Amino acid sequence: MKRAVVLLSGGLDSAVALWLAKSEGYELYTLSFDYGQRHNKEIMAAAKIAELAEVKSHRLVTINMDQWGGSSLTDKSMEVEDGDVDRTDIPVTYVPARNMVFLSIAASFAEAVEAQNIFIGVSQVDYSGYVDCRETFITAMENAINQGTVMAAEHHKPIKVHAPFIYKTKTEEILLGAQLGVPFEHTWSCYRGGEKPCGTCDSCLLRAKAFREAGVIDGAADQQ
Amino acid sequence: MKRAVVLLSGGLDSAVALWLAKSEGYELYTLSFDYGQRHNKEIMAAAKIAELAEVKSHRLVTINMDQWGGSSLTDKSMEVEDGDVDRTDIPVTYVPARNMVFLSIAASFAEAVEAQNIFIGVSQVDYSGYVDCRETFITAMENAINQGTVMAAEHHKPIKVHAPFIYKTKTEEILLGAQLGVPFEHTWSCYRGGEKPCGTCDSCLLRAKAFREAGVIDGAADQQ
Repeated sequence: MKRAVVLLSGGLDSAVALWLAKSEGYELYTLSFDYGQRHNKEIMAAAKIAELAEVKSHRLVTINMDQWGGSSLTDKSMEVEDGDVDRTDIPVTYVPARNMVFLSIAASFAEAVEAQNIFIGVSQVDYSGYVDCRETFITAMENAINQGTVMAAEHHKPIKVHAPFIYKTKTEEILLGAQLGVPFEHTWSCYRGGEKPCGTCDSCLLRAKAFREAGVIDGAADQQ
Repeated sequence: MKRAVVLLSGGLDSAVALWLAKSEGYELYTLSFDYGQRHNKEIMAAAKIAELAEVKSHRLVTINMDQWGGSSLTDKSMEVEDGDVDRTDIPVTYVPARNMVFLSIAASFAEAVEAQNIFIGVSQVDYSGYVDCRETFITAMENAINQGTVMAAEHHKPIKVHAPFIYKTKTEEILLGAQLGVPFEHTWSCYRGGEKPCGTCDSCLLRAKAFREAGVIDGAADQQ
């Protein structure tokens, strides 16, 4: 059976990526990260989503990357700004090299379970400030993974990094997710660490806008 | 002042890389990893070496990669084999994608402290079974780092991955280290987790052979 490691943040994009991989018949290995993010409710959301998707194995990797800050998501002394969906600069929620670290660890997990596929739910349409969501980076990283793992470089089993939403908008992802039956109500998007989504950070604003545009109801009972 | 992040395992190679970077005038930021390896004496060795090199900042990153095993270094149910310096297959001490994970996290740290240089003490001469010690991988990873960090991809400050020993033998490294005044006696090479180096694992054998060939005395008082 073909196997896939799916990066699962607990947010919307990665949940749709997981259901897409499931619909394509992969045996699923999900990976979440506790990297000191303030919105660690997403970690619990990821575990719930993995359970609902009936994955073969779900792993939580803990890394203390928050020790060098650089982002309001991990540096508790910085504030998460209110969002502005039309911004063009790099948001302070950028975590240095986060997707590179996630993909590297996914490659290690993939090699350990002999999975030749990694799924990541990034899009360069909605998140142009995050350079690690661009196709050029995904391609470069796939190349590094294939040079740096014995499975690929010695045993002729290349690893494919799937970024199925790289050119999709969040609205298109939601439409696909609705078709696939993604349990949106169990996903968590808010950057702030409150009981309920704040409704005002970048991530909450983008989510609300996309559901509105898709004409889909955001089933999260406790969403704003 | 130019800054460098140096991957510091506590072993011999990375200690020479650190002294080399020091001799070249870099402000030094060292990074060690606790990834569940059984030879975690090297973590203490790294801290001591960083102190002796008078680095600006030394960080220990903890990642629970041992949860998926795949290597005798992290999987406590596997044995570390006795060494064979003439082996050609992949040793069971291979940790899936280890250097990729280390370099990714180094890139995150580099971006946080605005260092445009990363040093890694790998050699493809002595460790040909480890594909993540080859120049093709280092080059691919440098490219991924430059695509995946805002500093490089947006702010025109590229990051260089230095692998100064990529074509050097361990014997040549030791000769250079002796010139630079590396405190070899504080480095730790043994793969096994004992009080003293076992003298029989791959790493101990390679170290002893290289010191012998270099005609340098291994100052580690408790080395075999």
